[in-house]
Amino acid sequence: MPELRKDPIIGRWVIIATERAKRPNDFKQSTADITEVVPCPFCEGNEDLTPPEIRSVRKAGTEPNKPGWDVRVVPNIHPVLRIEGELNKQPHGIYDMMNGIGANEVIIETPEHTEQMCSLKSEQIAKVLMAYKERIADLEGDTRFKYVLIFKNHKPASGATKIRHCRSQLIALPVCPKSVKGELVGAKRYFEYKDRCVFCDIISQELNDKKRLILEIDGFIAIAPFAARFPFETWILPKKHSADFTSITEEDAYELGKVLKEVLSRMNRLLSDPPYNYIIHTAPYRRPKQGYWSTIDSDYHWHIEIIPRLTRVAGFEWGTGFYINPMPPEDAAQFLRDA
Amino acid sequence: MPELRKDPIIGRWVIIATERAKRPNDFKQSTADITEVVPCPFCEGNEDLTPPEIRSVRKAGTEPNKPGWDVRVVPNIHPVLRIEGELNKQPHGIYDMMNGIGANEVIIETPEHTEQMCSLKSEQIAKVLMAYKERIADLEGDTRFKYVLIFKNHKPASGATKIRHCRSQLIALPVCPKSVKGELVGAKRYFEYKDRCVFCDIISQELNDKKRLILEIDGFIAIAPFAARFPFETWILPKKHSADFTSITEEDAYELGKVLKEVLSRMNRLLSDPPYNYIIHTAPYRRPKQGYWSTIDSDYHWHIEIIPRLTRVAGFEWGTGFYINPMPPEDAAQFLRDA
Repeated sequence: MPELRKDPIIGRWVIIATERAKRPNDFKQSTADITEVVPCPFCEGNEDLTPPEIRSVRKAGTEPNKPGWDVRVVPNIHPVLRIEGELNKQPHGIYDMMNGIGANEVIIETPEHTEQMCSLKSEQIAKVLMAYKERIADLEGDTRFKYVLIFKNHKPASGATKIRHCRSQLIALPVCPKSVKGELVGAKRYFEYKDRCVFCDIISQELNDKKRLILEIDGFIAIAPFAARFPFETWILPKKHSADFTSITEEDAYELGKVLKEVLSRMNRLLSDPPYNYIIHTAPYRRPKQGYWSTIDSDYHWHIEIIPRLTRVAGFEWGTGFYINPMPPEDAAQFLRDA
Repeated sequence: MPELRKDPIIGRWVIIATERAKRPNDFKQSTADITEVVPCPFCEGNEDLTPPEIRSVRKAGTEPNKPGWDVRVVPNIHPVLRIEGELNKQPHGIYDMMNGIGANEVIIETPEHTEQMCSLKSEQIAKVLMAYKERIADLEGDTRFKYVLIFKNHKPASGATKIRHCRSQLIALPVCPKSVKGELVGAKRYFEYKDRCVFCDIISQELNDKKRLILEIDGFIAIAPFAARFPFETWILPKKHSADFTSITEEDAYELGKVLKEVLSRMNRLLSDPPYNYIIHTAPYRRPKQGYWSTIDSDYHWHIEIIPRLTRVAGFEWGTGFYINPMPPEDAAQFLRDA
């Protein structure tokens, strides 16, 4: 059973993946093996190479775990957390830990063997986004979970494995990750001082300033954030205030699909298909709906953060949370506007 | 002038290195050029290839910026922050920023062209540690600075440049980095609840448990932390409580030199000379010396964190502060004890 362990100083939870445990030799420096896995378990026709599907968007009349789907969600065959069992929260001397309970799913974003999300049609991306929404909403029913992360690793340098088939992952957690907590606390502090959502204020300033605005399509904007940690770091935000990604309608998903396709296509052209990650930042499960000064629903604002993996991050940046970015976000936005 | 910009949500300060600004082409994927810079500006005899030295440990009778030194501290020739100027703290609409004022020095750790700190003699490492101490203490006199980071990048994969000469860097900052603040706040909360230093409690539990203890030499221990984020992550702590690295005596420096040499030698043997970073975590400048419940001097405990760079960190780990470690720290400690 994997373990969730809490750092006693900083309060950060870490998954100790005991079942993935490795020997020192596995970490020795080697030239990366980029041979692809064949046959690809995520291609249409190879449905029997994955665990049975949890959900799929399929053509009428087709059967589960058979061809005929547009989007398919399956359990990760090597899950970092286990879905079965009790949390069993316990001390270990002065330390705190619990069983590594959680969900770890793979969202297969196209039946075809394509690596590029930006080459999918907007309609297809919209279906993927609706699948994210439905999985997030469905897992809220499991009261063991406090937060759900949806993220994409594009290309091996971003953390992806050797399978080059367009997909994202979902991890549902019994704890709220440290940085998410930091965002919630920061947004709450801002709201209590200003009586306005900090993200709404950012959107309003960026639409006025235009210097860090990458694009504006329908109800969404893409910006280079003012204190970007990474070159070409990009945030996509809905202009309408909403804390929860699952509030998106089919129409929103279609518009967001257009924005995502456009931003990723521009990065692809400008930076020659860079490795990247994106992460959906949404409100936690089971948040209180009423508060005296504010609630997460009033303070927080869901968004997507895209991080191209272009620079080597020095360990001291992980160790200190202190970043040096050689690309001013105003320049990055200009390059992406022109791309 | 570089800029320090604050993320309006999470409160994280980032250096926007405007003078290092790059074009998109500079980020395109390329096979790493590992040609060494020749001649090496950090070798004895090449003193005129660096800016004039700030400090050095030298043989009696030798002149500054000439051969005859054991440790030499020089300004970084491409500093990420500028030493001259005013902070000029200012708003930018809803955002906060200030000039990128700070110090950025290079501590050259041996006159010989050696890459490996672990091949230096303990006595030499002790001299290096005393140089760290003196630089930290000296820069406290500059009231613009709130914190000083000392870190080492070993090998290019850790963020080092192409010069393979053993050295560390120092960055003095007008703000306290986010994670350091998190550590200080966490340690304070623990102290207020328990009336004990959390690091002292960790040391006592690890000395009893022994499962995560890597070694114990004189006044120092090296452990694999309970919630390690990375395989073979190692912390070195002084057994005697002290918040401030500059409290070390020459004797402490000699003992710490032995511990550092031993830990790095074991990593070198076990993991075939892995890239790594280490960071000295010490108390901030100008902290209040009196408080009702506690002070940073009572709550906090300086230490060194060593992070081998063995795994690819997925962007979502930066984005969420949520880490997955495939090497249980008990196993890592066992391997390092046996190495």
